[in-house]
Amino acid sequence: MSYSLYPIGYIRSTLQTLSDAPRQGGEGAPDAWLQVEGQFVVGLRGISVGDEIIVVTWLHRAKRDVLQVHPRGDTQNPLAGVFATRSPHRPNPLGLHRVTVREIAEGRMRVGPIEAIDGTPVVDVKPVL
Amino acid sequence: MSYSLYPIGYIRSTLQTLSDAPRQGGEGAPDAWLQVEGQFVVGLRGISVGDEIIVVTWLHRAKRDVLQVHPRGDTQNPLAGVFATRSPHRPNPLGLHRVTVREIAEGRMRVGPIEAIDGTPVVDVKPVL
Repeated sequence: MSYSLYPIGYIRSTLQTLSDAPRQGGEGAPDAWLQVEGQFVVGLRGISVGDEIIVVTWLHRAKRDVLQVHPRGDTQNPLAGVFATRSPHRPNPLGLHRVTVREIAEGRMRVGPIEAIDGTPVVDVKPVL
Repeated sequence: MSYSLYPIGYIRSTLQTLSDAPRQGGEGAPDAWLQVEGQFVVGLRGISVGDEIIVVTWLHRAKRDVLQVHPRGDTQNPLAGVFATRSPHRPNPLGLHRVTVREIAEGRMRVGPIEAIDGTPVVDVKPVL
């Protein structure tokens, strides 16, 4: 049993590598562009500058066979199950990024702060309730 | 380009149909059991009763070809893009449910309140930051 996820867009960021990416959104992450694929642009209608949204990404560089990690990559921290952490490594490597909409242009939005690297697929966008 | 998502577990709820499900989590949704598949149980290590977590579901009954909806199903509301709403109908029908862990048993957790119907696949669990 599996389900197919399709990118609705991609992150365009100055973060080029995982080592550039800060560990958590609040720690110095930059803004980035969310470039939306043409057929999905109509789905953005109603989103405004200043809105807080959740960008759901597919962390395409993550390892899917990891079930326990040392939190924040520090071996001093005892092993924890990945579902108790925000590790990108997990069976379904979905990333949740709570961001503010900074700017809206044709088929893209500038959002931030967001720690996703350039080229990260975006699979959903939702308002913060 | 697509990515495969595998269920890590399933929701076991008294909500049997979509019409039973309240529109938003805060409006009278019940608690439910999150039954985790055997090989993924180790990934729960570190989650405790009282924790607030985000359960990510695959809304298997949703329509994937919908890009605009009348919010809350009310045709009086002007059409909005699905990414500006919490509609289950969207290209990748992921559900985000912020819940409290009520009880932990072998291979399952009772969580709530959660508006997902019985049998809904769960694809990820994350702590609330």
